[in-house]
Amino acid sequence: MSGECRNQEMFLIIGDSESNADLYYATRFQVGTTVIYLEAGGRKTLLVNDLEYGRAGVEARVDEIVSTSPYEERLRAAGQPVRITAVLDLCLRDRGISELTVSTSFAFGYAECLRKLGYTLRLREDPFFPQRLIKRPDEIRAIEEAQEQAEAAMAFAADILAKSEVRDGWLYKGSRILTSEGVRTEIQKFLLDRDYQAFNTIVAGGDQGADPHTRGRGPLPAGQTIIIDIFPRSERTMYWGDMTRTFVRGKASAAVNKLYEDVLAAQNLAFSLLRDGVRGQDVHNEVATLFRERGDPNEEVGGKKTGFIHATGHGIGLEIHELPRIARAEGELYAGEVVTVEPGLYYPGTGAVRLEDVVVITQDGCRNLNSFPKQLEL
Amino acid sequence: MSGECRNQEMFLIIGDSESNADLYYATRFQVGTTVIYLEAGGRKTLLVNDLEYGRAGVEARVDEIVSTSPYEERLRAAGQPVRITAVLDLCLRDRGISELTVSTSFAFGYAECLRKLGYTLRLREDPFFPQRLIKRPDEIRAIEEAQEQAEAAMAFAADILAKSEVRDGWLYKGSRILTSEGVRTEIQKFLLDRDYQAFNTIVAGGDQGADPHTRGRGPLPAGQTIIIDIFPRSERTMYWGDMTRTFVRGKASAAVNKLYEDVLAAQNLAFSLLRDGVRGQDVHNEVATLFRERGDPNEEVGGKKTGFIHATGHGIGLEIHELPRIARAEGELYAGEVVTVEPGLYYPGTGAVRLEDVVVITQDGCRNLNSFPKQLEL
Repeated sequence: MSGECRNQEMFLIIGDSESNADLYYATRFQVGTTVIYLEAGGRKTLLVNDLEYGRAGVEARVDEIVSTSPYEERLRAAGQPVRITAVLDLCLRDRGISELTVSTSFAFGYAECLRKLGYTLRLREDPFFPQRLIKRPDEIRAIEEAQEQAEAAMAFAADILAKSEVRDGWLYKGSRILTSEGVRTEIQKFLLDRDYQAFNTIVAGGDQGADPHTRGRGPLPAGQTIIIDIFPRSERTMYWGDMTRTFVRGKASAAVNKLYEDVLAAQNLAFSLLRDGVRGQDVHNEVATLFRERGDPNEEVGGKKTGFIHATGHGIGLEIHELPRIARAEGELYAGEVVTVEPGLYYPGTGAVRLEDVVVITQDGCRNLNSFPKQLEL
Repeated sequence: MSGECRNQEMFLIIGDSESNADLYYATRFQVGTTVIYLEAGGRKTLLVNDLEYGRAGVEARVDEIVSTSPYEERLRAAGQPVRITAVLDLCLRDRGISELTVSTSFAFGYAECLRKLGYTLRLREDPFFPQRLIKRPDEIRAIEEAQEQAEAAMAFAADILAKSEVRDGWLYKGSRILTSEGVRTEIQKFLLDRDYQAFNTIVAGGDQGADPHTRGRGPLPAGQTIIIDIFPRSERTMYWGDMTRTFVRGKASAAVNKLYEDVLAAQNLAFSLLRDGVRGQDVHNEVATLFRERGDPNEEVGGKKTGFIHATGHGIGLEIHELPRIARAEGELYAGEVVTVEPGLYYPGTGAVRLEDVVVITQDGCRNLNSFPKQLEL
């Protein structure tokens, strides 16, 4: 950021790396308080307060770490409030910078303040760092590790269901009835023991599964579908995993067996279509067509959409949902991108089935990071 | 939002209630996908996609729930991309709304898009909902419940330390050395069992504690300070708790005993000063003065700030850190506000001590939601 860089585009992030994946991507610095990140011509500068300064020096992969405290002192000496935009303003003035490029998620309050201070703000549409889409080998490895833990947790949960006793149509572990909450907590504790955070894990039995964003509550039924959707995040690498299996404890109905076969066929169809350059909407539409042709309609029943009611997949990495998409929206997929493939069918009264794996797009296909069996009945 | 409301200020939020506390405050709807919230004259409208529509009808405390899908169909029919701002635009046109009030955290990308579409955006400085500062009785109860769980987890952790064996200056549980990571995981699992999320729990021994934002890693030392800072969030109410205790397993040095006494005195001083109308900076400055007068200097040692190096406290509620502050920054405190009181002293080589309780400001004082003992040695 010396003189010769002044004509280069200056990227600005103000945030913390727990909620701002771009900031973590750029710095690899886990920080829960608000910091300022500047980047021009590949040179990275981080402004942090004194509480973070020492740790930033050790952990942040940037070219320059600047303490905010001299700027804070200057503001106090001038009788001005110590706001982060005021600190940034002093730093930018020192360096002769007046134009900044920010992301769509940049806070409007900061933007208005910086504009009033005379800065020109350029909006960069998503993705802010396009290189985040194509995962490096270490990133793919981190996602693969998260998937391995998700699979271990899924095996652990499936074992709980498989070993449960069936009484009066409900699942029991000894004398206690098995609940969504109980199984969810066991899964999440299992993952915590392995330094993975997992929240809102879905364990949804019967009709609850037909609402794909319901976490599930109450006793778990025998002979009906139970959707388990686990998305752990590594406390070390910050990368996510995401996988779903559907189980029936006991005997599944013929209708549920057919739903399962259709979802499995849809997932395999998607796998066969994914490759470098494929259009996400084409994959999604093929999946939708397969369901239609197999007699799985999209209908509104009692004001509720049923059938195949969500996207086929989404990118995953430092965010649980990120670009690219495999959905109705347009967009191509490229080698090195990592996406979920998760078709599902949802029919209250019959059953809810979703199967979700994570794959890496390759030149001529895709590589599945999951190997967990797809077996309906336990 | 019928005709008679058109001249009223229209508040707009676009977000999910996991990352946007204002949205949850306004709707009490736990939703992980992006929704649109509009409020004018106290009338609340929520726009959600079909996946959330059914659950919103049951859970969201709003006056009107609107499905986005008719708008999405209109966009598709017109060959336009289905963006959330385009959906919002159609809805606002239908209702004759052209001026919107948004928060400082509103996404700049949405703001730029709405302005291009002809809307006037007004920025409301923090707090977006000023009523969020003064907690209702049910909110205080939710924070109190979170503090009770934090205390239970702290008792559980203190018991692990108290029962540990000391060998060669380190803590052991049987044949295994006790680590920050191990105790942190035990605390977090304890809380998960009670439906509280807890992450980044601090268990920091020795000099690690002198870096107040370090979570702690590796073996835990005997005879040195161990800071435990627990901040659980209820999965049910979404409210946070936050508390800190400092322990020494075995015998504390005279220097550490003095630090502990000084921090305790500082915390009691803050309690005695807090009341309706008090200025946060006055409380903070009094705490800083007490430390100075007791001979606890603020000094830079080897490029690292030591002494009393952070704020005295912060508001807590649906966010772990929210307004008001007890810090150098200006601002008054009022009855019904809930804040942490957490003075600390940090001297690498000697010890790190922090004590943190949560209090409710009252007309003539404050009510401490914590009763956990303040005892240094275990």
